[in-house]
Formats: sequence, structure tokens, C-alpha cells
Amino acid sequence: MRPSGRKLDEMRAVSIETGITKHAEGSCMIRVGDTHVLCTATIEDRVPPFIKGSGLGWVTAEYGMLPRSTTSRMRREATAGKQGGRTVEIQRLIGRSLRAGVDRVALGERQITVDCDVIQADGGTRCAAITGGWVALRQAVNTLMKAGDVTSDPLVSPVAAVSCGLYAGQPVLDLDYAEDSEAGVDGNFILRGDGRLIEVQMSAEGATFSRGEMDQLIGLAETGVAALVDAQAAALA
Amino acid sequence: MRPSGRKLDEMRAVSIETGITKHAEGSCMIRVGDTHVLCTATIEDRVPPFIKGSGLGWVTAEYGMLPRSTTSRMRREATAGKQGGRTVEIQRLIGRSLRAGVDRVALGERQITVDCDVIQADGGTRCAAITGGWVALRQAVNTLMKAGDVTSDPLVSPVAAVSCGLYAGQPVLDLDYAEDSEAGVDGNFILRGDGRLIEVQMSAEGATFSRGEMDQLIGLAETGVAALVDAQAAALA
Amino acid sequence: MRPSGRKLDEMRAVSIETGITKHAEGSCMIRVGDTHVLCTATIEDRVPPFIKGSGLGWVTAEYGMLPRSTTSRMRREATAGKQGGRTVEIQRLIGRSLRAGVDRVALGERQITVDCDVIQADGGTRCAAITGGWVALRQAVNTLMKAGDVTSDPLVSPVAAVSCGLYAGQPVLDLDYAEDSEAGVDGNFILRGDGRLIEVQMSAEGATFSRGEMDQLIGLAETGVAALVDAQAAALA
Amino acid sequence: MRPSGRKLDEMRAVSIETGITKHAEGSCMIRVGDTHVLCTATIEDRVPPFIKGSGLGWVTAEYGMLPRSTTSRMRREATAGKQGGRTVEIQRLIGRSLRAGVDRVALGERQITVDCDVIQADGGTRCAAITGGWVALRQAVNTLMKAGDVTSDPLVSPVAAVSCGLYAGQPVLDLDYAEDSEAGVDGNFILRGDGRLIEVQMSAEGATFSRGEMDQLIGLAETGVAALVDAQAAALA
Amino acid sequence: MRPSGRKLDEMRAVSIETGITKHAEGSCMIRVGDTHVLCTATIEDRVPPFIKGSGLGWVTAEYGMLPRSTTSRMRREATAGKQGGRTVEIQRLIGRSLRAGVDRVALGERQITVDCDVIQADGGTRCAAITGGWVALRQAVNTLMKAGDVTSDPLVSPVAAVSCGLYAGQPVLDLDYAEDSEAGVDGNFILRGDGRLIEVQMSAEGATFSRGEMDQLIGLAETGVAALVDAQAAALA
Amino acid sequence: MRPSGRKLDEMRAVSIETGITKHAEGSCMIRVGDTHVLCTATIEDRVPPFIKGSGLGWVTAEYGMLPRSTTSRMRREATAGKQGGRTVEIQRLIGRSLRAGVDRVALGERQITVDCDVIQADGGTRCAAITGGWVALRQAVNTLMKAGDVTSDPLVSPVAAVSCGLYAGQPVLDLDYAEDSEAGVDGNFILRGDGRLIEVQMSAEGATFSRGEMDQLIGLAETGVAALVDAQAAALA
Repeated sequence: MRPSGRKLDEMRAVSIETGITKHAEGSCMIRVGDTHVLCTATIEDRVPPFIKGSGLGWVTAEYGMLPRSTTSRMRREATAGKQGGRTVEIQRLIGRSLRAGVDRVALGERQITVDCDVIQADGGTRCAAITGGWVALRQAVNTLMKAGDVTSDPLVSPVAAVSCGLYAGQPVLDLDYAEDSEAGVDGNFILRGDGRLIEVQMSAEGATFSRGEMDQLIGLAETGVAALVDAQAAALA
Repeated sequence: MRPSGRKLDEMRAVSIETGITKHAEGSCMIRVGDTHVLCTATIEDRVPPFIKGSGLGWVTAEYGMLPRSTTSRMRREATAGKQGGRTVEIQRLIGRSLRAGVDRVALGERQITVDCDVIQADGGTRCAAITGGWVALRQAVNTLMKAGDVTSDPLVSPVAAVSCGLYAGQPVLDLDYAEDSEAGVDGNFILRGDGRLIEVQMSAEGATFSRGEMDQLIGLAETGVAALVDAQAAALA
Repeated sequence: MRPSGRKLDEMRAVSIETGITKHAEGSCMIRVGDTHVLCTATIEDRVPPFIKGSGLGWVTAEYGMLPRSTTSRMRREATAGKQGGRTVEIQRLIGRSLRAGVDRVALGERQITVDCDVIQADGGTRCAAITGGWVALRQAVNTLMKAGDVTSDPLVSPVAAVSCGLYAGQPVLDLDYAEDSEAGVDGNFILRGDGRLIEVQMSAEGATFSRGEMDQLIGLAETGVAALVDAQAAALA
Repeated sequence: MRPSGRKLDEMRAVSIETGITKHAEGSCMIRVGDTHVLCTATIEDRVPPFIKGSGLGWVTAEYGMLPRSTTSRMRREATAGKQGGRTVEIQRLIGRSLRAGVDRVALGERQITVDCDVIQADGGTRCAAITGGWVALRQAVNTLMKAGDVTSDPLVSPVAAVSCGLYAGQPVLDLDYAEDSEAGVDGNFILRGDGRLIEVQMSAEGATFSRGEMDQLIGLAETGVAALVDAQAAALA
Repeated sequence: MRPSGRKLDEMRAVSIETGITKHAEGSCMIRVGDTHVLCTATIEDRVPPFIKGSGLGWVTAEYGMLPRSTTSRMRREATAGKQGGRTVEIQRLIGRSLRAGVDRVALGERQITVDCDVIQADGGTRCAAITGGWVALRQAVNTLMKAGDVTSDPLVSPVAAVSCGLYAGQPVLDLDYAEDSEAGVDGNFILRGDGRLIEVQMSAEGATFSRGEMDQLIGLAETGVAALVDAQAAALA
Repeated sequence: MRPSGRKLDEMRAVSIETGITKHAEGSCMIRVGDTHVLCTATIEDRVPPFIKGSGLGWVTAEYGMLPRSTTSRMRREATAGKQGGRTVEIQRLIGRSLRAGVDRVALGERQITVDCDVIQADGGTRCAAITGGWVALRQAVNTLMKAGDVTSDPLVSPVAAVSCGLYAGQPVLDLDYAEDSEAGVDGNFILRGDGRLIEVQMSAEGATFSRGEMDQLIGLAETGVAALVDAQAAALA
């Protein structure tokens, strides 16, 4: 029934390749089917003004798409003169999601910026960015711990994300672009490795959903995130 | 237990006053406790480029806060040179939510812009904007129908929104600012008058939540939205 | 002869309602006929760089129009990416006018920002903003004096403004939009309560005027401002 | 009494040199004392959207200051990313003033843009820009008439401007920078060659003025403008 | 003598991997040592306004660096609100260089945009972008020819680029970052496959050079470009 | 053969007039044929952040064109909201070129900004800007030396620039606009008074060139710069 022939609860193939760039404190290329996102983590000693002097750390994220990561070429946001609304929404989501897995006291007064740049898009880029971003973050934190700059591990639990939605009336896991552009209802589910929910963003364009459908989609998301957390662990091993 | 003394499932006082400005095709001031939002609806004969010639209508929204709607003065976005990320997120949400109650074929190739400007803020401004925005939209559509420009009612069901969250470990309905700034987990729930879900945005800053808690919050939201839909109907009567 | 049926030297009905928002140190809604402007005053302990350390205070203003305050919807300046030329001109005028009633030594090194947001426009918004802005400023200064932060009253005289012009060849007081869009010559007159002139901005689009006509218009303005100063006093009583 | 030793009603030396640039349809360098402004006029066949198809012409102006036209270097507006509020105010004034001397029906549906760039500033740059701008405009219109593109002269009367103010309590004509920075009250007076007033902008920073003083300043302005109109005629002869 | 141990006339290892993204009409990852640039080519049926209707084609380029392609993280240009001066210079150079190898009549009225995004930087990114950009362009043109949209090959000769400079007083080929940041004199040499020069940009920061040294560097560049043209051919085979 | 009737190796008439503005520490109007550029130099005690505390000085440049310096009016960059790519390239080139003649240790920790504003353009504006800019810089440095702020002369050698190119297949010196718009190959050559090369920017639009042609052009440039250096010396004498 799905355009790709996948089963309703079947994820696309996931691979996470680390060590992509030599400069960053953490980096990986995450591939979820044909969605490829390059994630890097950068450690800096400064924090945003609103927490200066608080002793707390900060994790933030930025997101971008290469102009030809999509079927037709998108205008480069640097030439448009600003990040679009969708970009801003997504990078705020990535940052908020990653922070949910971080003990900011243990991190200490420093900032880690996770950059997520989409090399090739086929649906679910923000979820891939969160999942890959956590791997880059983990590597950067490992660097801090090896150097003795941080003594107690500030990462309390892995964080991963998957999209689910109603496609042709059926709840499906991990929508690709073909499904995403048809689905009237879809959502992004961000969970921790221990199964706790961090963020749920269900939205409908020209459709609605019930409490029961919502519950089914969360169930699918739990399955998907469990697989993603395994892939994160394997990449970091 | 709540700072305001309200019960866990108790909304703030809601009032919706219509006819606020003489120029707009629809307008109201919605007051949810100390949160006051002025909503206007404007009908235009043009539609965005991506649907030109499709015969479909469009409903969109813009959101703003007056500089001193908040405890300390915010910088005016027009002087900052752009709308901030939060503003963009919110106005996209308002537009998407209102469209979920609209039959865009019946509306015909025209655009209705709903402007939501916060006069005074005390938590829950985006939910108030959706609820009040729907009233302004309803009035504008009534104008079209009276003029015979639209023959079949394009508004399929009222749309309203409320925020719920976990405050001091308890699920509470309709968070005010004092609660919102403390709640680790909170969400915005947009529903139609028939009880169908349109959008759910649950997020956690430094906390997590379970499937069960999520379900409890949806239950509260159903109660709240039912009351809001009654207030909409009363204002329009 | 006037579209509204008013006499040549007749102002529109004026009302000033204070206490509009709970957060601001001063606030009012001024209504001059169908022109409605919300004015708030905000006290801040910082001053602009060019007077830092001088011991002098500063009063400044910002002006905006809600998108649907006008007959057809205006583009929101925050989405346009900047304040237009007209807005900048007006807010500079408001600030300059209010400062003419302020003893900046007595105010001490702090800044008061007066925000004037037009809720509904029907001509004369900048004059209404000045007149209402002074009320908000007065309230804010009262707060400082009650708190003992300021000992000698820095407000030396009320400031108010009215527009006058030549309509159908006749000098008229307080132009509304219907008159303003027809008048070849019109001006804004800002005066203090003691009758001294602060600012006169006479301009003509496709017309000219004589010294005698100018003098007549100033005479009308004196009448109008006297009435406005009374309305300010009544609102503050 | 004046820093320059001039009498109260004495203008600075005025010279207007035409033919400054070979590309423009009209150009001059106006020097009013040490204030030097380069003015050019450009004819274009297009008009702004709001008068397209009306058969009416348009005259507009732009104003700029070279970064080192002033005592200390100013930031270049092109690097600041926008024209400042003062610039916008001034160029709107120049355009409005010049249009007051133009019969837009006779001009026909074309636009003339007058660029006024300050090479060296010593007070009164906007008045010099108007006076010199009119000369460039006159030359450009002459070109149109010689070519037969315009048959009836669209320039109804020369336009010139001068600043006057209260310096050390005395009304003085044509303020230079030393006077302008001290004067509590000063104004710009734009008149036609026939003595009719086009625009009066009196403003006070930290001071006020009476009707009588205003009248005295207009008297001075009439004297000054008469001399400027003679200088315009001589330059064009 | 060189930090990398290379001989004076020795290039870094070069590899060009095609087929990097599935959406673009042409794509490759070029690696020149540790400098990695992703190049894509996009065909569009529109051309810039200045050649509309001329029958001529256009080739243009855009350049960007991922924030963490460098040793320390760079600010993302999309958040800075504009492309920096260096970026603009580089992308203009890439476009101009590629066009030198294109017969724009044979291309026909269409545009090919070459996007060059630096994944990892270690000196010479603009030269790598040109060399890799030509490969992507070649692939895109092949697509057009296979489809019969273009009948005569519009690519007249391959284009490639290399940097050379004076390092420790010696002329060296293909500077890496360690050399580039020390070299007082360095240049970018863009040549066609037939050895003709297209562009030479020699510049010195705190140093100068002679005609003889310039000639030596061109000689080195000829050697380097010959090798790059071979690598292009191999990648496309 | 040349449109102007000049010989292949003949420069246009050059004049450099100093003392153009009374405010700047150095200023001149350079005229190379019909290309007229006003250059000013401004001394400031601050330096850019990246050399603060280093004891080194900085020389930078900004470039602009008046809107009607060209045949058709150009849009003012201040209204466009940013400097265009060409402007940024040129002002970076001017600054880099001038710095090549400066001993930044001897200059001491201060900045000199050279503003180059094109009053009338007829080809070669950037070269004229460099040549005239050096004269303004020399004057500003003389001021510092007379005041004893600088003891050893930081200007090691004059810097001047000229464009050369292939016009109708022939190498020609100092291209004017008519030649420049036809020449397939042209370049800017910046040299010091002692004949050392500082920067060479050869580029071709729709053409190529050989090593031999490049060498011929450098020969012409040496001749031209020698004449320009004489003109600089004469202007400063």
C-alpha cells in the first residue's frame, strides 16, 4: 500500500557514519532512506547572554538545506537575506529536543551548537537532524569528558525522533516525501531512549484526527525511536 | 494549588467582544483572563501565487505583540527589521489551524487574512488568537454570504484552542503566565467544535512526559475547547 | 460644508481612557472621533549612548498602525522588514514634541518610551498620539515621583497637538480622513498648555498658502489644543 | 553677534554652478557658504505604480551625505543597510517641495528624480538641496521641451528654501552649523518665486516660540528666498 | 620545506566523485587534499532579465561554506542576513570562470546554476569549486544533449583552477591552508583545458612581487590545471 | 583605432585636485578623462576588533557611486538596503592595495578610512579610486606626522593603478567606458612607485588570453602607473 512497498510499521534503512569532518568536535552523516543530513557539533566557551554567570550550559541548533537537496532548486537563504519561517521552526525544535537529554548543570557554562545541513531530502529531515544531531553532541561531550573539562556525564539519555502519520487512512511509521506530501495528518515524535516523550507535534492540513489515532501513532513512534536509538549506539561504539 | 486559586480543570473568564474596528470585515477583542488579543479579518480578491487559478481560497494569519503588552517592554519587530522565530511559528500555527475549519472550494479564489495583535499578555496568547481569530473569520465569511459572493458556507466547524500542561506535577487547564513560566511540560491543543483534533503541540523544556499524561491533557483540552466554542457562539449570536 | 457636518472650528468628540494595560507604567486609549490610538509609557533605567553619563533623561516614542486600522489592510511593517518613511517621521515628531514639555535634568538619567499604536485610523493619528502620549507620560512620571525616584516634577507643561488645514478654501480645525485626503494644505500644530508653540509642520501637496492663512490656522490650533489639554486633565483627574 | 559676523538678515554667499556631470539631464553644484550639494535630475519614462495610466507626471527626490561631508565621518548608509530616519524625512520634503512648483498634467506620464548629494555640510543642507534641485529640474524640463516631448511648460514657479531660527534670542536668516547646533528653535521655509508658502517646518528642541516670532521668521525667509530665486535665474541664464 | 612535505610543484591528492545527490542534473564531491566541496548543477528554463529574449543561455554560480567546514565555527550567512563580501566575490568568480568555457548561443535560452558548498575547508576552496563545478555543469549539459534539448555541445573546453603563491620566498603549487595563511603573495589561476588563461587574480597582503615571479606562478598553474583536467575527464568517463 | 583616437599606450588626461573638502584629514578629486572620483581620508583612533591591542594600524576603504554618475541612473545602494557585490569587491581591492604601501607598525594602532565616491564614471573608476585614494591617505598621514603622532613615515611607497586590456585584439592602456564594454579581456594592475606589483586582476568575459598577452599588458601598466605616480607627486607638492 505504501509507495515504497514498506509495511505500515517499517522504518527506512538507517545508517549513521561518524567522523565526516576533521574540524568539528563531533560529526556524522545520518541517512534515513534517501534523506541525508550532515550533523556537526561545536563547543564554545561562551553562552548566550540570558544565562551568563548562571553556571548552566546551553545546547542550540541550526538547520539548513543545500539549495539542490530538493527536487527543484530552493533559493539559498543567505541570498534571500533571512532564514525562512520553516527553518526557524525546525532549528528551534532541534535545539529544544536535544536539551531535553542534557543535564545543563553538569555541562557547565559552555555552549554546544549542533549544525544540521540537509544534503539530500526525501521527507523527515527534521527527525533525521535530531537523531543525527544527538550523535554529534555525544561525540563532542565525550571530548570534553576525555579532556577532564566535564566530570559527570551531562547526557542523561539519548534523544531520537521519527515522523508518523495517517496515509490513505492508515497509521504509518517514518513517512518519506511521497507519503508526507499526501498525508493529511502527520506528526513528529521526539522521545528519549527510556521511552519518555519530549515533544509531540501533530498537525493536519485539510483533515482532522481522533484521540485514538493519536495514540496509535505514538505507539508506532515508540517502535521507531527504539530502532533509532540502537543505530545511534552502534554508530558510537 | 494554582497561583490564581483556580481548580485544575478551570478555565479563566472568557469574553469575546465583536465590532471593535469599523474598517475590518470581521473583528473582535478576545479576553481570556488578562490575555487580550485584538483579531481582525480582511477579505482580499487575490490569492498567493501557489494557488492562483486553482479556484481554491486561502486563509492566513499574522500575529504581533504590542511592545508593552508584556511585563517588560519588548522591542518592536518593525524596528528589529524582522519577525522573530516565535512570531513566525505562532502565525503559521494560527493560519494552519483556522484552515482546518474551512472548505477552501466553497470559499472560492479569495484570501482572508486574520490579524491577531496582543494588547495585553498573560499566557496563552496563541490559543486566544486562534479562538478569537475564528470569530473574526466567521464574521468576514458572513459578509461574503450576505453579499452573495459565496453561496455554500465554507466554514465547516468552529475552531478553538487552549493550552494545558503539567504544573507542579498536576495536569492543569488553560495556563496563565505564572503557570506557563514554571511548567516543564505544556502544550497547545487545537480542536474543532465537533471534538476532532486539528493540531497538538506538546513540548517540554527540561522535563519529559508519558503517554498517559498526554492523554489526560487531551481530556482537559476537550473540556476547555467546548467552553470556548460556546463563547464564540454567544459572541456571534 | 464639512463632510461630517462640523463647524469650521469644531473638534471631533475626544475621549481619553486611562489604565488600558496592566503592565505599562502609563497607558491610555485616546479617541478623537473614529481615530483610536493606544498609548503606553515604559520607564527604563538606561539612556541612549549619546547621553550616557550626562545626568540627563530622555523621552522617545515609537509609532505603529495595526494592519487593519485602515480602510484597506496595510502590510505589517515587521514583515516588510522595516519601518516606512512615514512611520519614522511620525515617531520622531512625537518624541521631539513630548520632550519639549520635559525638564530632562529633573527627569534624571533614565528613559521613558512612549508607544503609540493606532487601533483605528480616521485622520490625525499623529496628533492623537502626541496628545494621548502625554497622558501616558504623565502617569509614568507620577509613578516615579510617588516612588521618590524623582523629586522635582520634570513635566513643565502639558503638550497636545491638532491638525488644521484649508478645506474647500476654508480654514478648518481637526481634519478627519475625508477632509485630509482632499485638503491641498494642511498642518500639524503642537503646542504646550501655556499656548507656546513647539512645532509647526505646514505642508501643501499641489497647492500653496499665504502668511495670512497660516496665521488663521495657528489661531484654530490654539483653540483646539486648549480643549485637548482640558481633556488630558480630566482623564488624569 | 553671529559666529560668522553676519547681520541678522544676511544670507551666506550663494553660488550655483551648472553642468557638473555629463550624464544627467540636469545638474548643478550649489554652494551656500560651506554647504556644498551636488544635484542631478534624471528623466525616466516610467512612473510609480500608484499613478500608472493617470497621464500625470511625478517628481521625486533622493538625498544622501558623503561619509566625510561632516566634521566626523558618518557611517555610509549603504553599509548600514538602510537610509536613516533623518535621510528619509529630508528626501520626502525635497520631493514634496519641488512638486509644488510642477504642473503634473503638463509634465505628462514620466518621472524626474532629483538626487541631492551633500559633498560638504555646514548647516542647511536640505534647503540647499531644494534650491539646487530646482535648478537641475529646470534644466531637465528644458531638455524635454527642446525635444518637443513636452509642449506647455510644466514648471509653474521656481521653488527655493532657507532655514531661519532663533539664535541667542534673535531671529536670524540662513543658519550655519555653528548656529544650528545652538538654536533652540529653527525652521525650514520653502516658498515659490511668487512668495507663496509651500511648506513650513518649525521645530524646537528644548524651547518654544510665539506666533509673533514665527511671523518674524517667515518675514526673514521671504527675503532669503527672493535672493535664492535670483541666484537660480542667474545660474540658468 | 612545505608543511605537508610536498614538493614545490606537487598538487595535493585530487578525487572527484560524481552522483552525490539524486535530485540534481549534475553533482560531484571534489576533494583536493582536505578541501571537500559539493557541487551541483541545476537546469532552469528561465534566464536573468537582462538576457530575456536574446536566445542566449546563462551559467551562474553560488558558493557557501557549512558553518563548521572551518577550524572554528563560522556564523551561518543565512542568520547573518546576507552573504559576506568574500562569498560574493567568490561566487562571481566561479560563474565568470565557468562561462568562459561555454558557448552561450549553443546553450540556448536557459540557465544553469552551479552550487558549490564547502563541506570541509583546507585552503583553495574557490579553485576546487570551479574545477568540481565544471564537472557538474558537464553532466547537466549531457542531460540536455541526451534529451535533444541542445544539439551542438555548448561546452567548448573544460575549465579548472588552482592557486599558486610565494611561500617562504619560493613559488609553490596548490597552497593548503597552512601555506595560504603564511603566503604574502598568492593567486588564483583559472585556465581552460587548452591552456588559455581565463582569469588571474594575484594579490599580496603586506608584500609585493615581480613580473618574473608572476610568470613562474603561471607556469606552475599550467602544470596543476593539466592534472585537474585529467581528473575531470576520469570522473566523467 | 581607439574610439577616443588615443594611441595604444596613451593614458587619458589625469588631474588631481587636493583640498576638496574642509572636514577631511585628506581629500582630492581625481579626474582621469571623464572619470571623476572624490577621495577623502579619515583618521580614527580605533582599529577593527581583530587587531585591537596589536599595536598595528589599519587602512581600509569604502567605495560608492552617486546614482547619476552613470549614463542611466543607478539605484542608490542605501535604498537597495545593501552594497552590491561589485561595490564590495571594489572596496576590498582598494583597501588591500593601499595597505600594500603602508608600514602598519609605523602607523601605530589607528585606522585610516579612505572613501572613494564616483561623481562621474567613464571606465576605470576603481583604478582612479586607488590612485586618488593614495593622495588622500598621504595627506592624512602628513597630518599625523606634523602633529608628532607618528614619528617614522608609515608610507613606504606610492600606490597607483591602471586598467589595461585587449581591445579589438590589441593591448591598450587605460580603457575608457566605450573600450571597457567591448573588451573581452581586461585587467586591473596595481603597482607601487618602485615598479613592484601588488595586485593583478585579469579577467575575460567570453574570451581567453595567453601568457604573452598578459606580459604585454603588464608592460603597458608599468608605463601608466609611472605617469600616475608623477601626477600624485605633483598634486602633493
